[in-house]
Amino acid sequence: MPVEITKQFIEDLQQLIGEKNNDSLLVLLEEVHYADIAEVIEELYTEEAIYLIRLLESDVTSEVIAELDEDVREKILRELSSKEIAEEIDELDTDDAADIISELSENQKEEVISHLEDIEHAKEIVELLRYDEDTAGGLMAKELVKVNENWNVLTCVKEMRSQAEEVTRVHSIYVVDDNNKLKGRLSLKDLLTTSTKTAIKDVLIKNVDAVNVNEKAEDVARIMQKYDLEAIPVVDEIGHLVGRITIDDIVDVIKEEAEKDYQMAAGLVDDVEADDSIFELTKARLPWLVLGLFGGLGSVFIMEGYENIMSDPRYGKLFFFTPLIAAMAGNVGVQSSAIVVQGLANDIIKGSLLSRLFKEVSLSLISGTVLGLLVMLFGVIMPSMMDTLLSFTVAISMLCVIIVAALIGTFVPIILDKRGIDPAIATGPFITTSNDIFGIFLFFYIAKLILGF
Amino acid sequence: MPVEITKQFIEDLQQLIGEKNNDSLLVLLEEVHYADIAEVIEELYTEEAIYLIRLLESDVTSEVIAELDEDVREKILRELSSKEIAEEIDELDTDDAADIISELSENQKEEVISHLEDIEHAKEIVELLRYDEDTAGGLMAKELVKVNENWNVLTCVKEMRSQAEEVTRVHSIYVVDDNNKLKGRLSLKDLLTTSTKTAIKDVLIKNVDAVNVNEKAEDVARIMQKYDLEAIPVVDEIGHLVGRITIDDIVDVIKEEAEKDYQMAAGLVDDVEADDSIFELTKARLPWLVLGLFGGLGSVFIMEGYENIMSDPRYGKLFFFTPLIAAMAGNVGVQSSAIVVQGLANDIIKGSLLSRLFKEVSLSLISGTVLGLLVMLFGVIMPSMMDTLLSFTVAISMLCVIIVAALIGTFVPIILDKRGIDPAIATGPFITTSNDIFGIFLFFYIAKLILGF
Repeated sequence: MPVEITKQFIEDLQQLIGEKNNDSLLVLLEEVHYADIAEVIEELYTEEAIYLIRLLESDVTSEVIAELDEDVREKILRELSSKEIAEEIDELDTDDAADIISELSENQKEEVISHLEDIEHAKEIVELLRYDEDTAGGLMAKELVKVNENWNVLTCVKEMRSQAEEVTRVHSIYVVDDNNKLKGRLSLKDLLTTSTKTAIKDVLIKNVDAVNVNEKAEDVARIMQKYDLEAIPVVDEIGHLVGRITIDDIVDVIKEEAEKDYQMAAGLVDDVEADDSIFELTKARLPWLVLGLFGGLGSVFIMEGYENIMSDPRYGKLFFFTPLIAAMAGNVGVQSSAIVVQGLANDIIKGSLLSRLFKEVSLSLISGTVLGLLVMLFGVIMPSMMDTLLSFTVAISMLCVIIVAALIGTFVPIILDKRGIDPAIATGPFITTSNDIFGIFLFFYIAKLILGF
Repeated sequence: MPVEITKQFIEDLQQLIGEKNNDSLLVLLEEVHYADIAEVIEELYTEEAIYLIRLLESDVTSEVIAELDEDVREKILRELSSKEIAEEIDELDTDDAADIISELSENQKEEVISHLEDIEHAKEIVELLRYDEDTAGGLMAKELVKVNENWNVLTCVKEMRSQAEEVTRVHSIYVVDDNNKLKGRLSLKDLLTTSTKTAIKDVLIKNVDAVNVNEKAEDVARIMQKYDLEAIPVVDEIGHLVGRITIDDIVDVIKEEAEKDYQMAAGLVDDVEADDSIFELTKARLPWLVLGLFGGLGSVFIMEGYENIMSDPRYGKLFFFTPLIAAMAGNVGVQSSAIVVQGLANDIIKGSLLSRLFKEVSLSLISGTVLGLLVMLFGVIMPSMMDTLLSFTVAISMLCVIIVAALIGTFVPIILDKRGIDPAIATGPFITTSNDIFGIFLFFYIAKLILGF
């Protein structure tokens, strides 16, 4: 069972490190999972972390390092020699190894690679470094179990035994021809239930799902989710088996995608966390705030055009409603864009643009009418606040603002998506800011038409 | 490889269904994956879908039905007899079977269960129905491969062969004692590489991660992600092995969690999709809009208190800045709350509340100062718009509003979380609406202090 990482545990650890009490440290951490050790290390000072990493066996620390937050890892790797890093890398699967090496400086990369002991492993890592991290090639590992279609089950099992030593988890057994072309797979079940003399050719499952090495990571994620796959083989342009991707890496892709959309909707530019530095957080937050400021100044311009009605007791009250109008425009816009962006992400936006237009207008008409009636009711209850004409004006213009806001929220993401731009950018502050300006413009324009000032 | 589901494909299919051309239909769909057939069925009219489901083999259609969107499934199951539904259920793994049965009415549930052919299967499904769907029990399946610790590898392999027939994918081989108490697991790798005479007791991996049947689904997801598990055994209160959860079900939990947070932040009450009915969409969208309306009316009240300065040429311009202030308060609040909510979800909010308070205030001071300087710069460039005193007033009060908004955005979710309420509720419209009101109140209050009206 997972260890509870308490403050006490961390403090005990820090004390033992301070005392250089290696024996007790080894006993304390003996049964702790590497994921928990990684969590502990993120709580320690860098020197303490280094001390632990030098103390523990590299088959554990390599996994710990792979598990760490990128910032923490960077700090730690900076203190380790290239030879020490290479020792950790030697223990890792090729995909994790390549991920870590790709974070190093060009110089250090070469040095670390030159120190790798296992030449075959080093070659595979270098191959993986060629691929963009957001592609199938960037996600895959070279570790896999493959057998030749011309073998029989017995040869196959023997061969697999030696291959399996290298592979942490056997997901599928891939079958290739003499040219390493992917022909199919064997299920572990078949292997357990077939006679040893059977030819592999006769039991392999053909038409196995595979992805091209250049496929985008999010498309790989979509395919693996849709077909409930736990591993997928990766092939090059001419069908050679070059690696395999497992579901645990895809889980990370899915989470990152979802978090990215969420952060964009919240107006955060970079992938930040609560524990990041003040500088990083400011860098992620300020750009959208500046945009919002310009938007706000834009609405100041619009309102200035109506300065003359301010001192008019009949119309001046309109200015009280600008935050309400802006808020409604913003909220409706965010709702519409969120639904569309999520639909696009899950590939479920179907039907024609015209039917979508019709739907959004109907939706806004319903919501806008309900909200407009509420405003008029408010006018009836509080006649001192707004007379009938004013509440009618606010209700009607709010209805129009809601319709326009919904259309902007719906179609801006769709248009961006058609042009190959990530539609998630058109959520959050982008949509609220543009809807604020449009909303206030429309509000005064319609009020002017109705009230005739 | 996945089939491209084109409009043409759907139209061809519809024509063949119209002609009742079963032979061509069977040929056309022979090689198509059930996940693709499910996607096709979601595009068809209900009668057409029913026609296909009755035509195809139930080992395919059962998976298709499990894969369908809940609304579509509901429509289709309504047209099938209890016997027909039972035939589909008979083909499914217990977890999918229980999920589908739990969607039926009480009456139909019993009828369908009474028609199940495999009594053992039926018993297991009934057992699963007892658990809440958001718990480990609700996610787990009964299909697993387990062996007794007292066997040797040979007995074990034999026994597993027969069990494996029942299990779609062998993830791990669980080891139990004579009382079905979980003792550990065997890796497939060990099985491939160990002599057949070895006793299971000597090769089993002890201390295997397991979750209690009542553990919350999101905690199971967290554990499986953290420890990179592809399957986890589920035990009851006294350690008996009762089922296993696989990573593909967890992928769904992770996605749903992320989408739920995203939708809450966007101000959507229910889990809606772009293709839902206008009624459902309105039901999901209207509540937050009504809240936003009340918030907007609240700020009308606040501004009415300052009606007397409206006609004053020195101060009246303050009203032009209310949408800007509200927008800044809203944007800052959403950013802060999003960071906290995500941190809480990933369990990475550490450190004391005081240090978090200090951090948020520092962050807001930096952003607020930059934004305030921009406002003053705007005043310098456009002196006709705002004189120095006015731009100074706006800048200072905006700075205060930003600090308060950041604190509300940060601490409301933290407080909710401490009280056991989902902090995600305090994102999006909730935070923008409350920050709008606070912001406008503060803006006029500070302006009054500075300008002395």
